[in-house]
Amino acid sequence: MFKENPAVRVGFVSFVGAGPGAVDLITVRGLRALQEAEVVLFDELPGRELLAHCRPEAERVSVGKRAGCRATSQSEINALLRHHAGRGKRVVRLKGGDPTVFGRLGEEMEALRAAQIPFEVIPGVTAACAAAAAAGISLTRRNVASTVILTTGHECAGKAAPTVDWAALAQPGATLGIYMGARALGSIARRLIAAGLPVQTPLLIISHASRPTQSIRSGTLADVDALAAVTESTPSLILIGESAISLSSRRNAIVPLAHATA
Amino acid sequence: MFKENPAVRVGFVSFVGAGPGAVDLITVRGLRALQEAEVVLFDELPGRELLAHCRPEAERVSVGKRAGCRATSQSEINALLRHHAGRGKRVVRLKGGDPTVFGRLGEEMEALRAAQIPFEVIPGVTAACAAAAAAGISLTRRNVASTVILTTGHECAGKAAPTVDWAALAQPGATLGIYMGARALGSIARRLIAAGLPVQTPLLIISHASRPTQSIRSGTLADVDALAAVTESTPSLILIGESAISLSSRRNAIVPLAHATA
Repeated sequence: MFKENPAVRVGFVSFVGAGPGAVDLITVRGLRALQEAEVVLFDELPGRELLAHCRPEAERVSVGKRAGCRATSQSEINALLRHHAGRGKRVVRLKGGDPTVFGRLGEEMEALRAAQIPFEVIPGVTAACAAAAAAGISLTRRNVASTVILTTGHECAGKAAPTVDWAALAQPGATLGIYMGARALGSIARRLIAAGLPVQTPLLIISHASRPTQSIRSGTLADVDALAAVTESTPSLILIGESAISLSSRRNAIVPLAHATA
Repeated sequence: MFKENPAVRVGFVSFVGAGPGAVDLITVRGLRALQEAEVVLFDELPGRELLAHCRPEAERVSVGKRAGCRATSQSEINALLRHHAGRGKRVVRLKGGDPTVFGRLGEEMEALRAAQIPFEVIPGVTAACAAAAAAGISLTRRNVASTVILTTGHECAGKAAPTVDWAALAQPGATLGIYMGARALGSIARRLIAAGLPVQTPLLIISHASRPTQSIRSGTLADVDALAAVTESTPSLILIGESAISLSSRRNAIVPLAHATA
């Protein structure tokens, strides 16, 4: 390995998608970047297990979030990125899932561009794909679902107005993947029904996809009361649509939602 | 390694998402499944380079497709899966991108379930995420794009009726990711404009994302004539929306579309 002069080194940031949580669902390129990093800024999700792959001397900085809102503010994270890359470090910014999907990547790239710090984006497995894989379903399905819609159920504090138009997303030929939606599920189901989705539209709640704590619950939009009772803040991905019918298998235990309206 | 009795061995199929094409953008788990496979059924995309990781004695069977339509029919692929797993083999079904997104996974899983052959789905990086990463943009963006819509521009021969409702997808607060859309781009742009998307809505055409032949072209929906002239059948992903503005960097050369309407 050649020695660089730290005084003239230019720092570099790799945004790395960690995937859904299982340590072997990161990409080979992402894992390599992590192994070579001098500083890792990581979210609490998908978990700390991946950090075991870092060099022993690597600095590990948690910039975790809770229920979608960061404990470390976005401007603090931007400042940390600039700080570490500015002193010539090879920085990995590790994000759950894929960095381009609900990962606040835009703000962080902008901060780096403004400071003329070079970066790359290493994509990852986004939560909707991981959840579908865990449930053994396909997000698209010939003659059933020709479109996949990824949206968020979480309106972070401080946002001026709700930006998700649920009526526009109530499309019978689509599979809807809702990120950070578990706590608003009752209200989302009501809005989708009001917008015209049939009450018998299938629905899956996949929590901790790919992790040992994985759980899969199945039901329909008609289970509004049971859905409203889902209040956990664990990382869950909601899939809604005709394709969202999972079959129990050796690897999947599917728990039906209580049919509260039956 | 213990010896199994081939007569009582149960075959197993791993559906593996290969990611966008660069060999190191497969997941660690997907790579391992490929390394352990006895039979690999692979699409022509994302390319054959990954097959170099297979065991020398592994059977490699191309079930490639051209412009979205398979040279090997779906029922032939299903039969091949059943055949190889039925004789006790460890089969990998390697698909470009993520298997759950426009990968015909549904049909193949159904064929295996009917034959009581166990399988797993190993997710991968889907083309929209890989394209966004290559272009250095985020598919979601606070106050700009709170939704990502993945759809297809390709209506395969034999399909009863077009299933994509372009008017419903013309949402200003969304990023639209169109798979297999390059050849229909002029007509898609016209439909989106007719449905109310502003003509100045940004657009990116990302071809061969992550591969040495990668190209990125940028423009807006107003470039309809230039878009209609895009006729290549190379694997391209189209991103449309306010977030689809890519900046040239050390790693990205962004080529503007001819402003045919200017």
